[in-house]
Amino acid sequence: MCGIVGMAGQGPVNQEIYDALLLLQHRGQDSTGMATAESSGVFHIHKARGQVREAFRTRDMRALLGDIGLGHVRYATKGTASNEEEAQPFYVNAPYGIVLVHNGNLTNTRELTRELFSKDRRHLNTSSDTELLVNILGSELQSEISGPDLDPAQVFRAVARVHERVEGSYATIALIAGYGLLAFRDPFGIRPLILGKRPAGGRDGREEWVVASESLVLENAGFEVVRDVEPGEAVFITLDGTLHAQQCARNPTLAPCSFEYVYLARPDSVMNGISVYEARLRMGERLADTIAKYTPHGSIDVVMPIPDSSRPAAMQVARKLGIEYREGFYKNRYVGRTFIMPGQAIRKKSVRQKLNAMSTEFQGKNVLLIDDSIVRGTTSREIIQMARDAGAKSVTFASAAPPVRYPHVYGINMPSRQELVAHGRTIPQIAEELGCDYLVYQEVEDLKAAIMEGTDLVDLDMSCFDGRYVTGTVSEEYLAWVEGSQES
Amino acid sequence: MCGIVGMAGQGPVNQEIYDALLLLQHRGQDSTGMATAESSGVFHIHKARGQVREAFRTRDMRALLGDIGLGHVRYATKGTASNEEEAQPFYVNAPYGIVLVHNGNLTNTRELTRELFSKDRRHLNTSSDTELLVNILGSELQSEISGPDLDPAQVFRAVARVHERVEGSYATIALIAGYGLLAFRDPFGIRPLILGKRPAGGRDGREEWVVASESLVLENAGFEVVRDVEPGEAVFITLDGTLHAQQCARNPTLAPCSFEYVYLARPDSVMNGISVYEARLRMGERLADTIAKYTPHGSIDVVMPIPDSSRPAAMQVARKLGIEYREGFYKNRYVGRTFIMPGQAIRKKSVRQKLNAMSTEFQGKNVLLIDDSIVRGTTSREIIQMARDAGAKSVTFASAAPPVRYPHVYGINMPSRQELVAHGRTIPQIAEELGCDYLVYQEVEDLKAAIMEGTDLVDLDMSCFDGRYVTGTVSEEYLAWVEGSQES
Amino acid sequence: MCGIVGMAGQGPVNQEIYDALLLLQHRGQDSTGMATAESSGVFHIHKARGQVREAFRTRDMRALLGDIGLGHVRYATKGTASNEEEAQPFYVNAPYGIVLVHNGNLTNTRELTRELFSKDRRHLNTSSDTELLVNILGSELQSEISGPDLDPAQVFRAVARVHERVEGSYATIALIAGYGLLAFRDPFGIRPLILGKRPAGGRDGREEWVVASESLVLENAGFEVVRDVEPGEAVFITLDGTLHAQQCARNPTLAPCSFEYVYLARPDSVMNGISVYEARLRMGERLADTIAKYTPHGSIDVVMPIPDSSRPAAMQVARKLGIEYREGFYKNRYVGRTFIMPGQAIRKKSVRQKLNAMSTEFQGKNVLLIDDSIVRGTTSREIIQMARDAGAKSVTFASAAPPVRYPHVYGINMPSRQELVAHGRTIPQIAEELGCDYLVYQEVEDLKAAIMEGTDLVDLDMSCFDGRYVTGTVSEEYLAWVEGSQES
Amino acid sequence: MCGIVGMAGQGPVNQEIYDALLLLQHRGQDSTGMATAESSGVFHIHKARGQVREAFRTRDMRALLGDIGLGHVRYATKGTASNEEEAQPFYVNAPYGIVLVHNGNLTNTRELTRELFSKDRRHLNTSSDTELLVNILGSELQSEISGPDLDPAQVFRAVARVHERVEGSYATIALIAGYGLLAFRDPFGIRPLILGKRPAGGRDGREEWVVASESLVLENAGFEVVRDVEPGEAVFITLDGTLHAQQCARNPTLAPCSFEYVYLARPDSVMNGISVYEARLRMGERLADTIAKYTPHGSIDVVMPIPDSSRPAAMQVARKLGIEYREGFYKNRYVGRTFIMPGQAIRKKSVRQKLNAMSTEFQGKNVLLIDDSIVRGTTSREIIQMARDAGAKSVTFASAAPPVRYPHVYGINMPSRQELVAHGRTIPQIAEELGCDYLVYQEVEDLKAAIMEGTDLVDLDMSCFDGRYVTGTVSEEYLAWVEGSQES
Repeated sequence: MCGIVGMAGQGPVNQEIYDALLLLQHRGQDSTGMATAESSGVFHIHKARGQVREAFRTRDMRALLGDIGLGHVRYATKGTASNEEEAQPFYVNAPYGIVLVHNGNLTNTRELTRELFSKDRRHLNTSSDTELLVNILGSELQSEISGPDLDPAQVFRAVARVHERVEGSYATIALIAGYGLLAFRDPFGIRPLILGKRPAGGRDGREEWVVASESLVLENAGFEVVRDVEPGEAVFITLDGTLHAQQCARNPTLAPCSFEYVYLARPDSVMNGISVYEARLRMGERLADTIAKYTPHGSIDVVMPIPDSSRPAAMQVARKLGIEYREGFYKNRYVGRTFIMPGQAIRKKSVRQKLNAMSTEFQGKNVLLIDDSIVRGTTSREIIQMARDAGAKSVTFASAAPPVRYPHVYGINMPSRQELVAHGRTIPQIAEELGCDYLVYQEVEDLKAAIMEGTDLVDLDMSCFDGRYVTGTVSEEYLAWVEGSQES
Repeated sequence: MCGIVGMAGQGPVNQEIYDALLLLQHRGQDSTGMATAESSGVFHIHKARGQVREAFRTRDMRALLGDIGLGHVRYATKGTASNEEEAQPFYVNAPYGIVLVHNGNLTNTRELTRELFSKDRRHLNTSSDTELLVNILGSELQSEISGPDLDPAQVFRAVARVHERVEGSYATIALIAGYGLLAFRDPFGIRPLILGKRPAGGRDGREEWVVASESLVLENAGFEVVRDVEPGEAVFITLDGTLHAQQCARNPTLAPCSFEYVYLARPDSVMNGISVYEARLRMGERLADTIAKYTPHGSIDVVMPIPDSSRPAAMQVARKLGIEYREGFYKNRYVGRTFIMPGQAIRKKSVRQKLNAMSTEFQGKNVLLIDDSIVRGTTSREIIQMARDAGAKSVTFASAAPPVRYPHVYGINMPSRQELVAHGRTIPQIAEELGCDYLVYQEVEDLKAAIMEGTDLVDLDMSCFDGRYVTGTVSEEYLAWVEGSQES
Repeated sequence: MCGIVGMAGQGPVNQEIYDALLLLQHRGQDSTGMATAESSGVFHIHKARGQVREAFRTRDMRALLGDIGLGHVRYATKGTASNEEEAQPFYVNAPYGIVLVHNGNLTNTRELTRELFSKDRRHLNTSSDTELLVNILGSELQSEISGPDLDPAQVFRAVARVHERVEGSYATIALIAGYGLLAFRDPFGIRPLILGKRPAGGRDGREEWVVASESLVLENAGFEVVRDVEPGEAVFITLDGTLHAQQCARNPTLAPCSFEYVYLARPDSVMNGISVYEARLRMGERLADTIAKYTPHGSIDVVMPIPDSSRPAAMQVARKLGIEYREGFYKNRYVGRTFIMPGQAIRKKSVRQKLNAMSTEFQGKNVLLIDDSIVRGTTSREIIQMARDAGAKSVTFASAAPPVRYPHVYGINMPSRQELVAHGRTIPQIAEELGCDYLVYQEVEDLKAAIMEGTDLVDLDMSCFDGRYVTGTVSEEYLAWVEGSQES
Repeated sequence: MCGIVGMAGQGPVNQEIYDALLLLQHRGQDSTGMATAESSGVFHIHKARGQVREAFRTRDMRALLGDIGLGHVRYATKGTASNEEEAQPFYVNAPYGIVLVHNGNLTNTRELTRELFSKDRRHLNTSSDTELLVNILGSELQSEISGPDLDPAQVFRAVARVHERVEGSYATIALIAGYGLLAFRDPFGIRPLILGKRPAGGRDGREEWVVASESLVLENAGFEVVRDVEPGEAVFITLDGTLHAQQCARNPTLAPCSFEYVYLARPDSVMNGISVYEARLRMGERLADTIAKYTPHGSIDVVMPIPDSSRPAAMQVARKLGIEYREGFYKNRYVGRTFIMPGQAIRKKSVRQKLNAMSTEFQGKNVLLIDDSIVRGTTSREIIQMARDAGAKSVTFASAAPPVRYPHVYGINMPSRQELVAHGRTIPQIAEELGCDYLVYQEVEDLKAAIMEGTDLVDLDMSCFDGRYVTGTVSEEYLAWVEGSQES
């Protein structure tokens, strides 16, 4: 869960990348980074812990000179949250000078690390797969060096070999010093990446380009959508503002991550041609049918979302079922800290710091709560209890996504299988665990249909729901290793 | 627009006041302050610019020792935003030692300032009316000093005289060193203040008390609502945990500020017995009728709120009119800065940094946009333009509140009359100014009814809509003076 | 050990007070504070932990508006170092508004605290005697209030009554809002305070005035020395730039603190007409004679100072004894921190972090080390060991001050008697404790003569050497109480 | 002017490197950096603007894990002071991973930059010659890669080729990930570097090693001096604590920078076998003779140093001439800032903020002021004026170094020739320019003798005094280029 943006402008890009990162902040809040390049090839890099707002002071921004640049917001995986050294972008100075950001997760990091050390004598200073990726790219570009200049064909050949060596998901943006901005997406297009253009109007009447995780960045900054970067495709924008694009993968197949639509992406984004907001409305439509099937008629007085992401689905559930829609939970926008005072016990973190239940809305009612998904189940359990404490007569809980039963290895942080409430439990057992009167999950096929309806999409990464990993390279041994290293 | 909280606990109150201030953060984000008192009478005070989250470091919190305390979040008025010296609480060291926070606005500050200087030789170091208030209270307490101890009756007599000297709105919390926590509300109860209790359970089996601007603070921290502090009433919680309460005003009349219900308060609060959320739903109900009356049948395809505060009203409008409800605007939660770069022009602040319009929701549709109110009109104009840019066929705009035509002098920041879009304009003229196809405002009587329905409330401060000031002491000369000093 | 400065200028004083505080930094490094007053009477106050350099940011300085002001650097006493609330200046808002800074120590704080509470109902929020002093002054000014204005005679009468109520040492500077700058010194002039003037040249051709702990502040900023403020005297500079001065004590007698000359003051200061540098040279002259008397002829090859304060004395010792002078110790100017690392033991603080011994200078030599004084003896013991480790054949140690055997109650921080190495020990016993071959102390009469020689001074506070307290109000019970509260 | 330190310990080195950097702080105060390496090969790097004390917070230190490491303090050259990106150490990740710090200045940067880009495609992101050096070293190590491991012989061959490619001065320390700590010195040993050892005592009974710019680092941390690293020599300490050393230059000749002895080094350091303190005493001895030759007998009443660095020389001058030594100037230790206030003129920086003259010492006297050297002459002129203002009857000025007439290209910041007061002027003309009555300079041969006396040293870099550049590669064209780029 990260957000990335790259921009090739006709004037300074620092403020625009900053604004774009703010719009992508929901994708990661643990660290922030930006790199820009001057036409001389000099890079300026600033990265810091925390949100965009906290990460840049005026003097940092003033140092980020240059008309091309990229940025990153990061959601740290367990145990690395405080590790500033894993903040992106990553930089290597040979060949050419490359800075790179990446959204996704590589699944053959162990092999790549061994290769890089033994073959290339390249030093990896962190356990970040992004550092791996920039070194693999660097290594492949190095082997392309022949004459005095680097041409797009060489860059595309290097990306093609990256595709061959690397497994997993990766939406990637890089700057190559003195040459331009490169962006590419893994052959399954698991993580999103969209390309935008702003009409000529700069100093030299050239077009300006942007690539970003989500389309709202384009809209907000006045760029028109060109298209999603295709799975396996690379685009290379040279310093003169020219766009070069080429398919670099052998058998690219679009199979985007379904979790973007369920939870991660902002509703006002359009990804792979699908409006996230409308996909969520459709999830609500279909979920309504399943709810009707599995709960007794008349057992629900009111439908309520768990804010914010389940709101569209909940509204459609209410509409379809003809039941009143009310917002009984209010989300606390301002989140603070718990200070550790000498001699005082540490307070348990509770969902009650994030949500407030309005008693007047619950008192004596049979409520249907809609959430986007259920992962560990701890939050759902607390929310159900809050509803009861606020006076609810009965609580039906519905998830707009199917049961989460498998690890997610393509860049969404998920706990190990043992911690998933749906792992090894039937739905009635989960309901008992959560403490609700009725529990309804979206059907796997309904989620698929809700996302793909009306598009020419043929595949989707649904691995955490169905255990099928689209890259075909994820073994049980790998899953066990991932879960093991998370534990430690 | 400020938020206040006071707590008399049976253990350290710093973390609980911190948490309470986070919940009140929507009432003010320019500065934050907390004061605690140890049983020895020693005060600890920390105030800082910015939001709660930024204002307190661990070492600040560790210094805030004591089992009673109070806190404040402040929305600075024009021209004083950066004035750290105006942050609350304010402290005077004679008599006894008093720290005080206040939500509201005094309207006879000029007279009080003169009196304090000539009569009491008390120095006012800022232009804050809160500094005035703590000195008036101090001055009146001073004249009560007789024997060795201060008893509740003396405190209440002092508050009674404060009511006589001071005009305007004031919900007030104070700590008196060595004695206890005092809270009182102006005789019209214009600004809210609610009292809560937590069952005995502390060290000595005593009850714990809280007073706060909004009830959600109570709910969130496990306090039960006792009641609103009554207009003119003072409550005094002595250090032993005993609550003393007394009506200190001659003719108290509850006339709470209607703007709390329209916009300011959180929907999950209950104020003066009225659920803010439900009042907003009722505003939607009534607004729907007015919309139906003034717009051609079939002229609206879809109803959309301007997030967040108009959402309940918009949902009810859609429901009542039987028109589809969609969320076409998305609010950017993460707000950053515009950096001033040498040699670059300063960018205009735009509503587009705060809202994003989803084209797919607007394309070819006749949209009805619902906002809670219209003040200057600049934001509304931009939003209407955004809807058009996103493809709307026509834009109808409706305000859940009536036209704002008069200054607000009781503690809500409003521009001077000249800047109000409704000042001196008819509704069609306003519609033209805003650029919408149709414009509908809530009727004054409907707003009143929506708020008061089902309660025994008999009056309401609606001054900015109808020009009637409940305190009866607001002259045209005063309004002109207020507007003049804002300008300078 | 504090430094104070006050300035009544004809333009902004913030930068000049800042510069002055830097020059007084050697007198205290734990906290810093500044207050300025605008002609309207508004005060601006900024105080912070740490040195001047760290305490003020540009925005703090910009807020410190006004043509009169004062500043303070503080050496915190044991246990209060981290207590930001004890930083000076202190402010009371009744009567008039007074901010005050103070160098010294009051010895009847227990009585004054009781009086203030029972008589004046004034709240003391800290245990600082400066907060006491500003309240006593406020209280006395209050009782002078009669007509509409405050005249110098009233101010002087109030100071006279402060002299009557307060015991101990106090060099004091205060701003009275709307009136001017007041400075006064206790009736024994124990702590220094000097008055300077800068010729007319400001906006209105008026003179500018400064009062400060040390004369170097005057020299550095282009003020000419007018004279020391006399013991018991008050000077009051009204806002129009007029100086009023009056003796306010009954029997003033100058008896300045001898420790200023021994150690505390900068050598380039002149205090009470005595050049500190020359007093130190004279201490060396006289010490040389005592050394000659008590050490075998030929037993010393080289004379070395412990930098920095003993350098003048050491040079004169070398000159008078005709022995070579060398600087074998180098003082580390840059002092850092010891970081606490998880799982590592805390390192002992050592004088070796502050001093470095050059082996080449010690190898095989009989060295005479000169220090300004010996208090606890721990540092001296370490230094003697360092000299031996560096190869010294023998180490003679000489102190330019006599044995410290009594507490210092007039504002120099000293440990309790039990911790003084000279307490209850003969000189040979001390020598054994310190580990030196020979130990020589200045004679009490010699120190007195060295300081007073060539002046008309008749008395000196030598209490920590001879146990005679000039104020005549220091009882054994008081000393025991002071030592007791330091321990706790 | 930089300071460097490297440590190969048997436990965490972060605190010890921190302490060492504090001791080297006088060599550079513009930025600070530290790198450590864990045995896994992972580097931790922290660099920041400003002094050591300001640069490291606890969390920075906690992240600097590892038993080997290095550090750097930097004196920024003109125009780069605020450029954080030029702070050392520099890191390259291929081959192996190398971090490097460097004291000195390369004189063939233009050629090296061209080579690196065209031959190696290595990206240089700054104009720092240290980034060049780490890339040259990396490039040469790369060409040594053969088998699976790196052995000391390969490292030494790489250093030998670095000596061939690089011209100028460079005392260098590097960490090679997974292998060890490398240190080497240019073939003329222009900049200092000393090797120390601490007896076995760590976890595995292995020795601990340190290399540093100055010997006082060794003394202070309990290391014994092994020897200076020889000119051209490289020492390589492998992770098992074994020291490997080899001469890597063809014709190494020791010709250390004379300015270290004149001004830069701390007096308590011993460099190339010469005590800096004693060299300065000898400079005083010889300067005394020259003064006697060129000034009329009896024309001087008192000798005064300009603190701090000229103190030893001045003491010896006084002793030899039999004239009284006094310290008439006091150096202000606490340096602050000048704040820019809106509407106020910027104050000129003046030597008066750094020095204070005691009038009592100057009044009516013929003074001889001793400084270590005279560069631009502006400070000397101000000091002479201060002496006159303080009442001096006449002022004789003497410099312990000869006239500075040529640029310094080996790592001491000096202005261009046009700005040197001695450039193109005779001594009487300089005296006139400075405004002194008599001016005496050390003779070139006397400075040489003072430094080399009693050693087997045969050469010295005296280039800024005599224009002879020991590396033999400094052309007039180069000097003009250096001065030109400084100007821009």
